Amino acid sequence: MKNILILGAGLSSSSLIRYLLQNAEENKWHLRIVDQNKEVIEKKINGSSHAEALVFNALKSEERRPEMEWADLVISMLPARYHVDVAEDCIELKKNLITPSYVSPQMKELHQKAEDAGIVIMNEIGVDPGIDHMSAMRVIDKVREEGGKMHIFESFTGGLVAPESDDNPWNYKFTWNPRNVVLAGQGGAAQFIQEGMYKYIPYTKLFRRTEIINIEGYGLFEGYANRNSLMYRALYGLDDIPTIYRGTLRRKGFSRAWDVFVQLGATDDTYTLEGSEHMTNRDFINSFLPYNENDSVELKLRHYLKIDLDDTLWDKLVWLGIFDGKEKIGLKNATPAQMLQKILEEKWALKPDDKDMIAMYHKFVYKMGNQFHEITSEMVNIGEDQTFTSMSNTVGLPLGICVKLVLNGTIQLKGVHIPTSKEVYDPILDELEDYGIKFIEREINPPRLYNVEESWS
Amino acid sequence: MKNILILGAGLSSSSLIRYLLQNAEENKWHLRIVDQNKEVIEKKINGSSHAEALVFNALKSEERRPEMEWADLVISMLPARYHVDVAEDCIELKKNLITPSYVSPQMKELHQKAEDAGIVIMNEIGVDPGIDHMSAMRVIDKVREEGGKMHIFESFTGGLVAPESDDNPWNYKFTWNPRNVVLAGQGGAAQFIQEGMYKYIPYTKLFRRTEIINIEGYGLFEGYANRNSLMYRALYGLDDIPTIYRGTLRRKGFSRAWDVFVQLGATDDTYTLEGSEHMTNRDFINSFLPYNENDSVELKLRHYLKIDLDDTLWDKLVWLGIFDGKEKIGLKNATPAQMLQKILEEKWALKPDDKDMIAMYHKFVYKMGNQFHEITSEMVNIGEDQTFTSMSNTVGLPLGICVKLVLNGTIQLKGVHIPTSKEVYDPILDELEDYGIKFIEREINPPRLYNVEESWS
Repeated sequence: MKNILILGAGLSSSSLIRYLLQNAEENKWHLRIVDQNKEVIEKKINGSSHAEALVFNALKSEERRPEMEWADLVISMLPARYHVDVAEDCIELKKNLITPSYVSPQMKELHQKAEDAGIVIMNEIGVDPGIDHMSAMRVIDKVREEGGKMHIFESFTGGLVAPESDDNPWNYKFTWNPRNVVLAGQGGAAQFIQEGMYKYIPYTKLFRRTEIINIEGYGLFEGYANRNSLMYRALYGLDDIPTIYRGTLRRKGFSRAWDVFVQLGATDDTYTLEGSEHMTNRDFINSFLPYNENDSVELKLRHYLKIDLDDTLWDKLVWLGIFDGKEKIGLKNATPAQMLQKILEEKWALKPDDKDMIAMYHKFVYKMGNQFHEITSEMVNIGEDQTFTSMSNTVGLPLGICVKLVLNGTIQLKGVHIPTSKEVYDPILDELEDYGIKFIEREINPPRLYNVEESWS
Repeated sequence: MKNILILGAGLSSSSLIRYLLQNAEENKWHLRIVDQNKEVIEKKINGSSHAEALVFNALKSEERRPEMEWADLVISMLPARYHVDVAEDCIELKKNLITPSYVSPQMKELHQKAEDAGIVIMNEIGVDPGIDHMSAMRVIDKVREEGGKMHIFESFTGGLVAPESDDNPWNYKFTWNPRNVVLAGQGGAAQFIQEGMYKYIPYTKLFRRTEIINIEGYGLFEGYANRNSLMYRALYGLDDIPTIYRGTLRRKGFSRAWDVFVQLGATDDTYTLEGSEHMTNRDFINSFLPYNENDSVELKLRHYLKIDLDDTLWDKLVWLGIFDGKEKIGLKNATPAQMLQKILEEKWALKPDDKDMIAMYHKFVYKMGNQFHEITSEMVNIGEDQTFTSMSNTVGLPLGICVKLVLNGTIQLKGVHIPTSKEVYDPILDELEDYGIKFIEREINPPRLYNVEESWS
């Protein structure tokens, strides 16, 4: 019997727990799941005899440690900032730890200690980060083995609404934390490298410098740059790659319309609006436009942002109801970003039968001998319902499979890791295919290079 | 004999010290001037028998207090963050204190203590803040006395190059801290109120929403919004004024061209550029533009920011040399803002005989009975040379005059103050006229209202 301790049973743990319960009998697992809310856990356990619900404050070391002593492996679904504390407990107690979160510098520093304790602390093993690492590294390693040298790596991921539930002009609904969507791209310029040239995109231009991406069977997407592409060179062993670019996927046309809010200043989260509790949508938009006693908010906005009369972007704005002047938004002391989020939450809410979608797209151009080649790798996954969403499945399944591989000894790594080694990604990607999370790789001819002259060499 | 202690003898103290020395004999003043650099002080004292140079660290309480005990009045020209410490010493020792800096919340809290100690701590008595308060309050109080009610208050100040030294297409040179110019407007949306409507301008639009201002004899200026107009309602007793707007003056056309750097992200001070030490001006600009192996930086920039071929803004960019690809900027680990500052410092430097200029413009619309009226008040001051600049004169003279008025008992105020009361501004503004710092007030007919309907009432 192997005991698995799960700290935190929030939204994203549904698919993880289902996977572990489905495989509990065969693998002789017993799950102990901790949360502050017993009902939440019991709903997820769904009467299974392989799991029990525990209610205590998992954020407190003294409360969780007695349970940890008892476990063979710990999964932390707690907020990311608690993972280092949990990891320190795991090192002392010599228990393996798995988390879906980014490795913090403090977590990284625990590598030697974890290795000495003979445990693995596997992080970033959800979807993004997680499946992105694994699916990219599978191609990168293969190219490397065959003697190729990577020249371009571009990678895009997006959490979107499934095509069958896509019924609004933005082709977007909130499938995850709305606040993160409203604040996306703030906090510093996006940085990447293209053909050896470092490039910087400020927030004010971020949503106007998208790349168009076609995913076969799913049509056109666009990607805007993530802030931190450069650090992936070190993570993936691509230190001298001339082009590396990571981005976030939206449906084509989204970003240009979203940029209206960026230009207005409506995504600002640094100050509160005077009298926000009295504002209608129309007042909110008008607060960013020049004063005029006669002109309409509509015409002022069109003029201010140079929106042509026949620009279909306008339909997106009208559909959101941003010109409605009847109902109050109803938030007191709210920042622009909070007001905008409130407006969007009503319009971009998933309906009860709506499904979400995760799309991922990698482009690899590499040189073999004197010849350039291109491979794309793409994955689209649709959620089952609003419990087993694509987000929950693509986060929970890699976690669950990793649990199995650690407990059955397939993964022998010790120390602090992310899933970039073959020993980890190969069995996980293989098993993910059984759950419909499958990457389709294609060779593209001729390869799409930025610098054509070099492609002639 | 009255002893005046001046802490700090930097750039901005030249005119202050000259004024005090010129008036020392008549008023029986003795000046003791502290700085880290004796030569700097002695140059300013210029052999006068009414002053002596002291070298110690005025930032340290234990070093300055023995000198403070000896003084009748202290002027602090130290960096603003030290003023609260100095004020606390002044309260204990019962010495009057004068500073040109903004009142911090901590300084404000000392009001009662200062009053109890029987001293005045007069702040914000330079040019902006300082002369702006005084010249505005003179009109505001006069209107109030005559029974008028203020409806619109707009106020603009700028530090510029004098017309006779204005020989570049930006009509701008650095006459003060270049770093502040490069970072101007960052750190939050500009907030103001117009006809009772709160308005917000984000940084990305700040330099595109200027107001055009004509100052008689000096031509056209433009003003972009300052961040903090709203707080002036409380300072000036205009709590329910429908329109209040403060801004910074540039010559017409400056802001639209400056916005090119804002849109590029070239004013960002939050990250460092990779390999900045190898970058030419051209590389620097190119790092913000999309990669293309063939297109020129010029065309990419024109296309990116939609700059027409016949737009005279382009001449400003070319004149700055931003497309020069020969010489390196030569800064290591530099932020975009630091790189841009370096480029600008060479081009926007004052030549040895150049003079600076301070321009200030207020617009007041008020209602008397059922009638609206408008008064403008404008001041332009030209520097003498590069020691007695307009900046130095307009900061130093109000300070110096205030010293006289405190020491001769004209100003009887106690506690922490800014120069918004008649007792302070009237004698100071009167004496400033002797030095050519003179406001010209005009009635404007018909008054320029934003809301014409109300003007018919």
